[in-house]
Amino acid sequence: MLEQVGPVGTETAALSACAGRVLARQVVARADIPPFDRSPYDGYAFRSQDVENASEQSPVTLRIVDYIAAGDVPHTCIRAGEAAHLMTGAPVPEGADAVLPFERTRFTEEAVTIDTPVKSGSNVVYAGEDVRKGTILCSPGVRIDAGLAGTLAGQGIFTPCVYKKPLVGVISTGSEILEENEEPSPGHIYNSNRYSLQAACELAGCRTVYMGTAGDDRDVIAGLIGEAFRTCDAVILSGGVSVGDFDCTPEAMVLSGVRLLAHGLALKPGMAGAYGIYDSSNENGPYSGDKSSYSGENGPYSGDKSSYSGDGSRAVPVFGLSGNPAACMTAFYAVVLPVLRRQMGFAPGACLPPQIRVRLSKDYSRKNQSARLLRGKVDLTAVVQEMEITGGQGNQVLSSVAGSNAFAEIPAGETVQAQETVHAFLMGEF
Amino acid sequence: MLEQVGPVGTETAALSACAGRVLARQVVARADIPPFDRSPYDGYAFRSQDVENASEQSPVTLRIVDYIAAGDVPHTCIRAGEAAHLMTGAPVPEGADAVLPFERTRFTEEAVTIDTPVKSGSNVVYAGEDVRKGTILCSPGVRIDAGLAGTLAGQGIFTPCVYKKPLVGVISTGSEILEENEEPSPGHIYNSNRYSLQAACELAGCRTVYMGTAGDDRDVIAGLIGEAFRTCDAVILSGGVSVGDFDCTPEAMVLSGVRLLAHGLALKPGMAGAYGIYDSSNENGPYSGDKSSYSGENGPYSGDKSSYSGDGSRAVPVFGLSGNPAACMTAFYAVVLPVLRRQMGFAPGACLPPQIRVRLSKDYSRKNQSARLLRGKVDLTAVVQEMEITGGQGNQVLSSVAGSNAFAEIPAGETVQAQETVHAFLMGEF
Repeated sequence: MLEQVGPVGTETAALSACAGRVLARQVVARADIPPFDRSPYDGYAFRSQDVENASEQSPVTLRIVDYIAAGDVPHTCIRAGEAAHLMTGAPVPEGADAVLPFERTRFTEEAVTIDTPVKSGSNVVYAGEDVRKGTILCSPGVRIDAGLAGTLAGQGIFTPCVYKKPLVGVISTGSEILEENEEPSPGHIYNSNRYSLQAACELAGCRTVYMGTAGDDRDVIAGLIGEAFRTCDAVILSGGVSVGDFDCTPEAMVLSGVRLLAHGLALKPGMAGAYGIYDSSNENGPYSGDKSSYSGENGPYSGDKSSYSGDGSRAVPVFGLSGNPAACMTAFYAVVLPVLRRQMGFAPGACLPPQIRVRLSKDYSRKNQSARLLRGKVDLTAVVQEMEITGGQGNQVLSSVAGSNAFAEIPAGETVQAQETVHAFLMGEF
Repeated sequence: MLEQVGPVGTETAALSACAGRVLARQVVARADIPPFDRSPYDGYAFRSQDVENASEQSPVTLRIVDYIAAGDVPHTCIRAGEAAHLMTGAPVPEGADAVLPFERTRFTEEAVTIDTPVKSGSNVVYAGEDVRKGTILCSPGVRIDAGLAGTLAGQGIFTPCVYKKPLVGVISTGSEILEENEEPSPGHIYNSNRYSLQAACELAGCRTVYMGTAGDDRDVIAGLIGEAFRTCDAVILSGGVSVGDFDCTPEAMVLSGVRLLAHGLALKPGMAGAYGIYDSSNENGPYSGDKSSYSGENGPYSGDKSSYSGDGSRAVPVFGLSGNPAACMTAFYAVVLPVLRRQMGFAPGACLPPQIRVRLSKDYSRKNQSARLLRGKVDLTAVVQEMEITGGQGNQVLSSVAGSNAFAEIPAGETVQAQETVHAFLMGEF
């Protein structure tokens, strides 16, 4: 799926609203920062050679010939025996090659006395010391952090080009699901997947829209998927993906024009699941509730590596996840998030979660036929990363996802004892 | 400052908009999740003792007496020789103590045949397996992550009580500062601190408002501070904090009714700085541009540990940071962010940044009179945390803040060689 989607597009945005956004263009410095030699202190600028023999016994007195405020420009150049009074941030005048803060001098309105040698370059912030014109400041796919926001501003870049935030449509299925405005009733449970999925997508930097719940009716589900295709860049469904009579999400996906890439994964929790791509250039368009549009064929897929093939078509990933809350979220972090990150504009190599090695806090003694992912909390600041396995690990146990930040991998057919080291990957924060 | 501020208040918010918000109340589970014994598969529920001797040679056939869809309730209880056909998510009926997925059985409309023993409890998700009624699900000061969002939804909590996001007013000073709508001109530089500070505050979870720039005029600065006090929970200024003629931010802070706690820190970069608290119960009210309100005294400070003393007064922290961009951001992460985190609702112990130990990638051979913080990038997923010291470390060098995530500390008077290990702290992501 990673190979078949690409960034969802770019836009310009106000720099003051760009914290955390993903930059879409390389930025090359247009100007030196600072743009001129600058004083970091209130003080006096002069020629260092004038004071090379200065001492307490034989101080040197220089005549003040200029007064330069911040935002001002020098009015004259500094010659032997002269000094300029500078404010913090003011340009260092021509001729001067050193600055001394005023509290390290004695001074009057007319003259400043210095009783120590000062090296050439002292207390001068040279033009380009922060950023040199022509330097590559950042590459596409970099998140705008505080330092980069200020660096862009310093260059006069106040409306950077950033990747659009993918809009993720979330659809819930299952007749037992209660929505938040419904009263509890026997045999029903409140929809939790919707909230977990929306929170996870938004914390990752996507926008989300909840498309609604669709019971267990294939056509209603397909209708919601089709509706999502009108506006969304990705679609996540939960429920209805195993092999039972009523597990009709994969059928609904196919009905909506989705080309299925996988039905079931060698992963636990998260074994049940259907994954596919909807190519919006598909002639039939999205499913509109009219069954006659379902031909059983998905039309040719272009094979384009980018989601936008130039003619306005785009590859919309569609994820049919387990309705079991923990299985749903495990598949989200293992499979969905990397694809969303690619859509957000991260480089292909920066989409998969960071790998770590962790020591497990507990034994894991059950052999599984497929790889088993255990959720837990890793203290990344510890020298040895010990993973505290949180609460129950059942497919239903969502409470142990809360506060977790990593998944440890138990390979198929293996058991692990407490304190053994295994591979793990991080849920987010990358 | 940490001791003198507290959370800025609470509000209820829609759960679907709560990702990353800080929970303000302890949440105790009101109900078991799941609320009833539940089948995780489409299959058959029955009494395990009925099949304890089942084998391929002598399979057991059970009569199907009920059909329970998800969202449905059982219509009868299961007795010896009977089974119920269940959909995923349906309640397990009374009498039955095991479930087998349908693909591991042979079945007709009337009967199901099982050729293997099944343990009591197999494939039953018991009521309370995820969350047991009465369990403390989370404490105040916890960020709402994906798992917690779903867990709250499962409990029917759709408008949790969260801490308000502090509103941080940002004020720039310095006559050399150009705003984004101004043309570049000699002796001037673009305002970068504003953007770095706003981005850092917002990435941390605060809201920000830019109050404007105030040149180097004490009264204008004091006027902006007073204006900020009307709406803001915290105020950050940059520039005008060292000891020069024009460094009038500390004076403006005092004029605005701020009680200064520190003027200058034993920290480099970030040595220049003024830090104080404005207590809004101060009789004089905020500075309104009328100098007669400046009495030179700040009024009594209540000493309350909370920012809200009950009578509507509040403690507003005011941070006068260096105008040098890297010094400004160093002081932000070292001093300002912990105070903002307290205002966001994190427990006092969770406000200081996480401490790590890192190996430096380069020598640091300059002795400083105060502790020196080197910014750089730490790969937290590495077994040994090596810190790559990024670019220039001058007070002016903002570009090396971009992409950094930690500060290494060089103690006063010490030098460090490449590969030596030192203390460090993280900039964010905690």
